[in-house]
Amino acid sequence: MPKITGVNKTFPGTRIIIEKVTPEIDCGKFPIKRVAGENVVVRADVFANGHDEVAATLLYRKRGEAKWREVPMQSLGNDAWIGSFLIGDENDHLYSVRGYVDEFSSWLHDLKKKADAGVDIAVDLKIGSALVSETAGRCKKGVSEKLKKWARKLASPKNIKEGLALAFSRELAEAMGSNLDQEKSETYAKELMVSVERGRALFSSWYELFPRSWSPKPGKHGTFKDCERVLPEIARMGFDVLYLPPIHPIGTSFRKGKNNSVKCGPGDPGSPWAIGSKEGGHKAVNPQLGTLKDFRALVGKAKEYKLEIALDIALQCSPDHPYLKEHPDWFRWRPDGSIQYAENPPKKYEDIVPLNFDTADREGLWEEMKSVFAFWIEQGVRIFRVDNPHTKPFVFWDWLIAEIKKDHPDVLFLSEAFTRPKVMYRLAKGGFSQSYTYFTWRNSKQEFQDYLTELSKAPIAEFFRPNFWPNTPDILAGHLQYAGREAFAIRAVMAATLSSNYGIYGPAFELCVNTPIKGREEYLDSEKYEIKRWDWDSPGNIKDLLASLNAIRKENPCLRMTRNIRFCNIDNDQLLAYYKATGDYSNIIIVVVNLDPAHVQSGWLQVPIWELGIEKEGSYVAHDLLTGQKHAWQGERNYIELDPQKSCAHVIRVNSQLRHEQDFDYFL
Amino acid sequence: MPKITGVNKTFPGTRIIIEKVTPEIDCGKFPIKRVAGENVVVRADVFANGHDEVAATLLYRKRGEAKWREVPMQSLGNDAWIGSFLIGDENDHLYSVRGYVDEFSSWLHDLKKKADAGVDIAVDLKIGSALVSETAGRCKKGVSEKLKKWARKLASPKNIKEGLALAFSRELAEAMGSNLDQEKSETYAKELMVSVERGRALFSSWYELFPRSWSPKPGKHGTFKDCERVLPEIARMGFDVLYLPPIHPIGTSFRKGKNNSVKCGPGDPGSPWAIGSKEGGHKAVNPQLGTLKDFRALVGKAKEYKLEIALDIALQCSPDHPYLKEHPDWFRWRPDGSIQYAENPPKKYEDIVPLNFDTADREGLWEEMKSVFAFWIEQGVRIFRVDNPHTKPFVFWDWLIAEIKKDHPDVLFLSEAFTRPKVMYRLAKGGFSQSYTYFTWRNSKQEFQDYLTELSKAPIAEFFRPNFWPNTPDILAGHLQYAGREAFAIRAVMAATLSSNYGIYGPAFELCVNTPIKGREEYLDSEKYEIKRWDWDSPGNIKDLLASLNAIRKENPCLRMTRNIRFCNIDNDQLLAYYKATGDYSNIIIVVVNLDPAHVQSGWLQVPIWELGIEKEGSYVAHDLLTGQKHAWQGERNYIELDPQKSCAHVIRVNSQLRHEQDFDYFL
Repeated sequence: MPKITGVNKTFPGTRIIIEKVTPEIDCGKFPIKRVAGENVVVRADVFANGHDEVAATLLYRKRGEAKWREVPMQSLGNDAWIGSFLIGDENDHLYSVRGYVDEFSSWLHDLKKKADAGVDIAVDLKIGSALVSETAGRCKKGVSEKLKKWARKLASPKNIKEGLALAFSRELAEAMGSNLDQEKSETYAKELMVSVERGRALFSSWYELFPRSWSPKPGKHGTFKDCERVLPEIARMGFDVLYLPPIHPIGTSFRKGKNNSVKCGPGDPGSPWAIGSKEGGHKAVNPQLGTLKDFRALVGKAKEYKLEIALDIALQCSPDHPYLKEHPDWFRWRPDGSIQYAENPPKKYEDIVPLNFDTADREGLWEEMKSVFAFWIEQGVRIFRVDNPHTKPFVFWDWLIAEIKKDHPDVLFLSEAFTRPKVMYRLAKGGFSQSYTYFTWRNSKQEFQDYLTELSKAPIAEFFRPNFWPNTPDILAGHLQYAGREAFAIRAVMAATLSSNYGIYGPAFELCVNTPIKGREEYLDSEKYEIKRWDWDSPGNIKDLLASLNAIRKENPCLRMTRNIRFCNIDNDQLLAYYKATGDYSNIIIVVVNLDPAHVQSGWLQVPIWELGIEKEGSYVAHDLLTGQKHAWQGERNYIELDPQKSCAHVIRVNSQLRHEQDFDYFL
Repeated sequence: MPKITGVNKTFPGTRIIIEKVTPEIDCGKFPIKRVAGENVVVRADVFANGHDEVAATLLYRKRGEAKWREVPMQSLGNDAWIGSFLIGDENDHLYSVRGYVDEFSSWLHDLKKKADAGVDIAVDLKIGSALVSETAGRCKKGVSEKLKKWARKLASPKNIKEGLALAFSRELAEAMGSNLDQEKSETYAKELMVSVERGRALFSSWYELFPRSWSPKPGKHGTFKDCERVLPEIARMGFDVLYLPPIHPIGTSFRKGKNNSVKCGPGDPGSPWAIGSKEGGHKAVNPQLGTLKDFRALVGKAKEYKLEIALDIALQCSPDHPYLKEHPDWFRWRPDGSIQYAENPPKKYEDIVPLNFDTADREGLWEEMKSVFAFWIEQGVRIFRVDNPHTKPFVFWDWLIAEIKKDHPDVLFLSEAFTRPKVMYRLAKGGFSQSYTYFTWRNSKQEFQDYLTELSKAPIAEFFRPNFWPNTPDILAGHLQYAGREAFAIRAVMAATLSSNYGIYGPAFELCVNTPIKGREEYLDSEKYEIKRWDWDSPGNIKDLLASLNAIRKENPCLRMTRNIRFCNIDNDQLLAYYKATGDYSNIIIVVVNLDPAHVQSGWLQVPIWELGIEKEGSYVAHDLLTGQKHAWQGERNYIELDPQKSCAHVIRVNSQLRHEQDFDYFL
């Protein structure tokens, strides 16, 4: 059989077609996202012309490595193939797909049919011998010797029976299968990317607070030092990220008073998002909070409690920011010579002026913005919550995140873009590690099922990591306003179990603060415009519930991802039921939440025992990790009754009675 | 406002994102297909950061033209846009998408809110003036003068009312909208391709016959000359393509006898697909059919009847083909020195030897194969039916079709690949104009609905043009075997109205020949292995039905495409109902077929009057073009009863009572 030699561009020897490789984000322009320990499951259509058998392999390597690792893919039928590899460490990876014409298998396939039909196969055995001998020529010595021996035997077997036995032997198949002819292979034209971040990108519990409200002395402006005293309780509740709104000097021009008033009282501290004064800009600390040294001390102290400090970076200025004088060309000016402040017509936000990313000095502006992040990285910060990233150019974020990650791959970015879905997804594709979501505005069972299904399906789940916030300083959603503590408990359970990343704005959340500005989804007397005093242990708080939830999240690996969620049938529209399982089913959590904060709700839950590997007959233990109670469940249908006054949800662990090797579905 | 100047690769001024452009086949690797007169409907997600208004345009041009034509796209909401352009002639086209930041619309949007709220807008009018004046600077003189005048007026209006009236004037909006700032635009990175073929690629009616069976003298081998006498009747039936199985010399080694017997009688003519003898190969004519000159005469004569001759090209040889001696390296040889014949183990086809496309002399083989097509193009052939293309490399067809089309863009290729769907689709992507399908093996209502929905949806419909064959010399499907004439009539109506391309193997089809080899889907006494004599006017033939169907197809433009099919509800599983309409609804055909050849079936048809623009009240004419009868239908529900003994189907024309400008849906 003549060999295909070399590559001839006009008359290529290509017989293999590789199509429809997934995941592949926007034709491979953007990477998928993973953390170490996660799988990458790849599907592709791989086929050849004619009747030859085909083999497909998945190729992967760490970025920087020269050689592909190669693992076999499994046929799914209809020319589709599937394979997976594990991300072993925190390096970016590349992957691709290779297909082979498998002449030996094709020969074997035909040989079997002929042998079954009693046709003379003497010549066919010789053809097989030639294939084996050809393979021997490109193998390592040990295998090569064996193959040569087998080739001779196939060419002149003692009898047909011996020839057939050898042809169909497992050893020969293995040796031939693992030495397919590279010259009869084809590799997918693209090298697809996996952006690998540290584990916290996928699993994190955020607690947001305003440092200025934590002075022990009434009426005094809190400091970083004061915050150190707060750390133990936040750690006790089980949070691992402590997120601070902007900590920079606050402008005085047009400073807002209480409740966003344009009249500012003498003691009003202003909005932390009106950044910059004569005391400095984005690289300075509000002197009322302390010094840069104090901030670094807080970062260090937090670390002792396994808490990371996340900083809010808002790329906007107060009219007093030093940038206005240093770089007037970075702003828009109105025909009357005044500066263009932020607007949402007819509303004016005169205490804030946006940076003009259309400036001719893009290089100067972008580099300065990068230096802001670099500055705080120097101070020990590794997580940034980015304010309104969707008002800045997408390509700016693409560039900035790539630049920062070059030197600091451990830095994480949370995108605070409450806007249209495609805009949010584009920011995620461009590199944001996590993203705020519409969780706060979902209410009904159907809405939750639809939204989580969207977020947990390909391709969204491959690049968009949701972070669920039941409240923020900007948002006191309607459903929290009309019910009491029960409504907060419901949202706590849902945020903590639906999404592996979640956060709360505290202590307003755990203290169940629910007084809005009339008719709006905003807090009355918002902490954004004033210093608050919190009675952190006031009765009715849900701190212990949060502590339980965070402990359950830590102990149960299935809750440390989001895209493994599956919904269960339950015959009551006020009960939402779902489960999460690890890929090997060694850890399974079933959650049932009563969406109704005011009434007892009950229904029959359909436990997906077939998926979970639970036997149809006999009982099994349903261990409620919230209450500690153990229920004896039986089969598929089990009765659920949830009284929001007692517990708004079951968070139940069950054990699979099977051992699953691997389940590809979990990642698709 | 500073201008974005030039392109800075590291710090680009890009604000527009363009994503998810459709149609886009395999990331733009393959073209979509159209004929002149068809629309290309393009969707894309186009958005920018921030709150600015965005505008999107569709770009297109003929291949070879330097400049894009640009047409506005319409917003579909949620950042999605849609636009379309008409393919005006038989040139390949390119298309892409452009997005603009529309600063004027953004300004207008905010101005309205401010004006409504009674806010002072004097400065805002000056900002608008600057935008208008900037636009004037890049416009043609006439528009520029107008804009300058308006800019002055906006800057210093007599009063606010006058300023507002000008700002919101239609003239200003139009002038600004059609002179958007190219420097604030972004063009999609890919130029996507439209392969444009002549109309017959989309709309054709094929008639296949074996010339050797058409001698008027019993027992004699028919000739091209004999075929000339057959042309008028084929033309009368309304076909436009006359397709001939291979016309080359037939090998004698291992020649097959009647019913594919390995024993060949002295008078047996052999299979036309066993190509090549000492009398020549793929560029020769079987002397029993006549000469090359006779063939050219047939091509010319057919043209007089508006019939095109399509040739069958089967890239395979009989063992007697001259290639075996001239190019032994183009074949596979067995270890015993014999040639590798075609096999489907344990079956052997020793009268046929495949070409080895893995040969080291790929250049020689490919160029020779190209010269075969070129040779028949020289003889006047412009349509090729390619036998088993899926057994040759895909990249070979990609190359061959592109090479042929370079000099002869009017040449069409029909792919005879009855194989797995992805293989069939890949051949179509690579350039085949039309493709055989699974039509023959679809039986139930659900199967037809599913299959046609697959074929008429994006992306398949963008590159795969089905050609429906109820029978072929290789296939006598089960459903034709067990019922008589009625079964053939049903399939004729379906093939001719479901698909704009269809064909029959005659006269076996119109004579309702239905005797199979026992237990198989093949003809007994197949014409593939013997010379037949046909009594073309024997009673019970369906020639007049075919003539009616072809006439209806020609008169009704909605039947000249396939992807406009939509199914209708009808409450009987034996009744299949669908309609086709032109994009402007000026031509609408509703078909109802009785799938049951043995019984009268009836049911209530739900006419989609809302889609078709038929009034709910009052009656309308349902004109059955098969029977000539006119029914008075009323509203949505109309009773249908079909007796297969009389007519197996209604092919009904109705008129829309509305005039639709455009309906994008028809092409998606």
